Amino acid sequence: MIAKVLVSLKDEVLDPAGRALTERLNNIGFPEVKSAKIGKYIELYIETGDREKEKDRVEDMCYKLLANTIIEEFEIIHEGEEKTKK
Amino acid sequence: MIAKVLVSLKDEVLDPAGRALTERLNNIGFPEVKSAKIGKYIELYIETGDREKEKDRVEDMCYKLLANTIIEEFEIIHEGEEKTKK
Repeated sequence: MIAKVLVSLKDEVLDPAGRALTERLNNIGFPEVKSAKIGKYIELYIETGDREKEKDRVEDMCYKLLANTIIEEFEIIHEGEEKTKK
Repeated sequence: MIAKVLVSLKDEVLDPAGRALTERLNNIGFPEVKSAKIGKYIELYIETGDREKEKDRVEDMCYKLLANTIIEEFEIIHEGEEKTKK
């Protein structure tokens, strides 16, 4: 299975890169962009027999390594299924 | 509306960061991860009157600034809708 992990800064954390991107998009002809956040996208290819158990495992990976939950939040998309947001 | 843009390296492009992440996950107790790719996640907050037109505009942003389509591919998720993959 493929799991897609989206990691982004929490709203209350200062994000200068996101601000710079917003400004740049506005300048090159996209004034409708009001704000932007830049984060990490991690795609995991997993070999597993148990899909349900694997969902917990991916969440575990996020807490242990992929996201810093003090300043970041994450969302997991399991290919072809609904998403889990934390 | 919110548009989520996932940018990742094309499969044929060397991704040392992805390999390092795979190895690290394997080492800390997740041997089921066979490979991983690390890319960018961009969340855009857009004020628009025309949702359909906006989809083309976000694709345009990807080609112009957000992704380097020589080595990267992108996927756009419009909140609450199906995704566009390029």
